[in-house]
Amino acid sequence: MIPASSPRLRPIGVVRSVLKARGKAPRQGFEGGPDAWIDVDPRMTSAVQGLRAGDEILLFTWFHQADRRVLQVHPRDDLRNPMTGVFATRSSDRPNPIGLHPVTIRSISRKGSRLRVGPLEAIDGTPVVDIKPVLR
Amino acid sequence: MIPASSPRLRPIGVVRSVLKARGKAPRQGFEGGPDAWIDVDPRMTSAVQGLRAGDEILLFTWFHQADRRVLQVHPRDDLRNPMTGVFATRSSDRPNPIGLHPVTIRSISRKGSRLRVGPLEAIDGTPVVDIKPVLR
Repeated sequence: MIPASSPRLRPIGVVRSVLKARGKAPRQGFEGGPDAWIDVDPRMTSAVQGLRAGDEILLFTWFHQADRRVLQVHPRDDLRNPMTGVFATRSSDRPNPIGLHPVTIRSISRKGSRLRVGPLEAIDGTPVVDIKPVLR
Repeated sequence: MIPASSPRLRPIGVVRSVLKARGKAPRQGFEGGPDAWIDVDPRMTSAVQGLRAGDEILLFTWFHQADRRVLQVHPRDDLRNPMTGVFATRSSDRPNPIGLHPVTIRSISRKGSRLRVGPLEAIDGTPVVDIKPVLR
């Protein structure tokens, strides 16, 4: 009954950040994440047209260092929190480790190939897979 | 510079809805989407533990009928709207057609294998790839 297909994601860009290691990143952007660059695939820059500095966007990433076998965790890695299904948590270890990051666009390069965004907890080298505007 | 890897998504469930065709679905759940069932992969039900009826969640789907080559659209298919990059729109045609749906859990089966959620505009058969709690 569950679809047997397993579609491939194609990264549309990559995070460039001063955060280099997963252990040093905050758990959420609003918990002290820095601003970071998004380098957009040169073949995709026309898809950026219409975004502007100041816009709030949802950045979708792929947590490439996540453990996809994990189904339950102690939330926030705190052993006092009872084991909980990952779908009830924001654990990055999960079957499809898609990161969802609400960020503000600080600036965009003229050709749309680089965006400055923040605050963002994703580490340097994290693939970006989608960008959506926040609905109002 | 852009990551060359192309990770595979593994569906964790599937949408079961009275909406059978993309052309008949509303553009957003809040624009008249019905309640629908999520059938969870039996191997994943432990990941549902901790979710409860009444919870607001973010449902991530894969728009399997989308055209992944599309980089610009007339927003809302209205030709009066100028061509805009898909990352500035909620078009389901986009390089990685991930659907993001804020829904409320109406009920959960005892074993976590079925969730009733709504309102949801995704059509019957749409693969579900992730579930996250709404952060407060």
